Amino acid sequence: MTSSTVSDLPTFDHVLAAAERIRGYAVLTPLLESSALNKRLGFRLLVKAEPLQRTGSFKFRGAFNRLVQLDEAERKRGVVAFSSGNHAQGVAHAAEILGIPATIIMPADAPAIKLANTRGYGADVVTYDRWTEDREAVAARIVSQRGGTIVKPYDEREIIAGQGTAGLEIIEQAAARGITIDAMAANSSGGGLIAGCALAFAARSPATKIYCAEPAGFDDHARSLAAGTRLQNEPGASSICDALMATTPGQLTFAINSARLAGGLVATDAEAKRAMAIAFNELKLVIEPGGAIALAAALHGRFPGNPGTIAVVASGGNVDPALFREALAA
Amino acid sequence: MTSSTVSDLPTFDHVLAAAERIRGYAVLTPLLESSALNKRLGFRLLVKAEPLQRTGSFKFRGAFNRLVQLDEAERKRGVVAFSSGNHAQGVAHAAEILGIPATIIMPADAPAIKLANTRGYGADVVTYDRWTEDREAVAARIVSQRGGTIVKPYDEREIIAGQGTAGLEIIEQAAARGITIDAMAANSSGGGLIAGCALAFAARSPATKIYCAEPAGFDDHARSLAAGTRLQNEPGASSICDALMATTPGQLTFAINSARLAGGLVATDAEAKRAMAIAFNELKLVIEPGGAIALAAALHGRFPGNPGTIAVVASGGNVDPALFREALAA
Repeated sequence: MTSSTVSDLPTFDHVLAAAERIRGYAVLTPLLESSALNKRLGFRLLVKAEPLQRTGSFKFRGAFNRLVQLDEAERKRGVVAFSSGNHAQGVAHAAEILGIPATIIMPADAPAIKLANTRGYGADVVTYDRWTEDREAVAARIVSQRGGTIVKPYDEREIIAGQGTAGLEIIEQAAARGITIDAMAANSSGGGLIAGCALAFAARSPATKIYCAEPAGFDDHARSLAAGTRLQNEPGASSICDALMATTPGQLTFAINSARLAGGLVATDAEAKRAMAIAFNELKLVIEPGGAIALAAALHGRFPGNPGTIAVVASGGNVDPALFREALAA
Repeated sequence: MTSSTVSDLPTFDHVLAAAERIRGYAVLTPLLESSALNKRLGFRLLVKAEPLQRTGSFKFRGAFNRLVQLDEAERKRGVVAFSSGNHAQGVAHAAEILGIPATIIMPADAPAIKLANTRGYGADVVTYDRWTEDREAVAARIVSQRGGTIVKPYDEREIIAGQGTAGLEIIEQAAARGITIDAMAANSSGGGLIAGCALAFAARSPATKIYCAEPAGFDDHARSLAAGTRLQNEPGASSICDALMATTPGQLTFAINSARLAGGLVATDAEAKRAMAIAFNELKLVIEPGGAIALAAALHGRFPGNPGTIAVVASGGNVDPALFREALAA
């Protein structure tokens, strides 16, 4: 794969264009809150409910925005994506809607629900070993064999722009209720969602402080932002947040995030589970572990200073029932 | 309590007026669907997500619509309500927003989450024994002691009109997506929700067939509609659907429902649990057992004839974690 240049970087105009493209295809997910929870926390907490998005995560936004721009010849050759699960489903379903053949490369140990759903959207799923094989190499091999366009999970202009529509919606939904957002956070793996959100907030709500949120042991963004350069996660860490396991920030996403983010927040797996249980009780929303880290950070006081009004993205809800039951029992 | 007269019946204009009153206070809950689920079912299923409503159920709609119309003197004297839990929370929170003192009479064995939440909204909760005491008598005694306005759970014009806003929103949300609804159903206990919805559909989508849905053993509406007169549930039945245990249709609600409903659908507790698990997997929505009966009826083929496009109201999500875990394990 070729390395990226500055001209590949999305701007707020790309986010606006993406918002037009996904209208009527993506769900305008609600910005939820619980007055009981706000009372307990002592600040106002808004939760963007992306588990209610098509395919159960925000990933449909970027995938659809990317695929809908392919020309006829590209559509015929099909698309290839690699993903731990949510990008897989987003690409598979966007491809299904647009009539594009999709091959998805997923880790063999991805949650059963994500594998099953991806196949349910009509994609050809190819599994690989997360520990011994390089997914980008597997993707490249498949493209060399079958042809097709690789749809990267985060380090691509139109993917970042598509994910940014979630941030744009938060701003618009809050404004419609007369709410000013003091700080916001989104979970980051490769950093595409928070990068897109950062573009939207910079343009439309520049006073809002923007954070990414990561599970303990996978805080490559937090450390990279502090160091001013892209760092890797230490090998050997484990987490129930299967959606947040990229080993290092993306090139494009870090170019945006290092310029715009106030820092990175970290929460533990146990805190993610507790956040899932609170979302169940107070918001009636199903969130997967990796979708709950930003919420966990808010609930556990990780936002620096006086929190004011905080918005977080609950980024996905594709969690196996056994793990969800465990979170409710904790 | 005085018996009701025809002039107490709400019309569609009352629903429209209620929609204006609740705007900005109630959540405009999304009308969800899952393309994967639609594919499996062979028909299109739309789910109105009232668990995402303030207080976790549709009951806030009617309660707010009623309370906001009280005059200054009435507000000062406060309100009294009896409820198995969701109406309790709806009234308590509407009263909290409007600064009205609220006394809520609840069964001592109501789900812990409903008791705790009602107290959390600042209401004075008085418990009674569901099997030996008459809640209406308890309410009358409290009013004679403390004064205040009784806010009935369903058999009251402005309550029915408020609940009907859920139906009006379904019609508007479907129309915005170019969808015609062939049939719809909502869970019924006293019948206020489905009566309000029936008024909205009669005015705005008259070709839609309207059904109520009840748990097995509590099918007083289904039998009453078939008989053309209000019948009681047989004593001794039990169900996990704590929200759907009224023993007979309301007077006002039955006057509307007997004229407008195509019939009553019935589903079992086991089917409700299965519907809760499917909503978890496919919609990422938390539904309580009594909120899932109409969904269960749709999932289990209870709608007569060719289903076409079906809309159901998922009416509430206030379920204790232990029971939800059980539903996911079934």
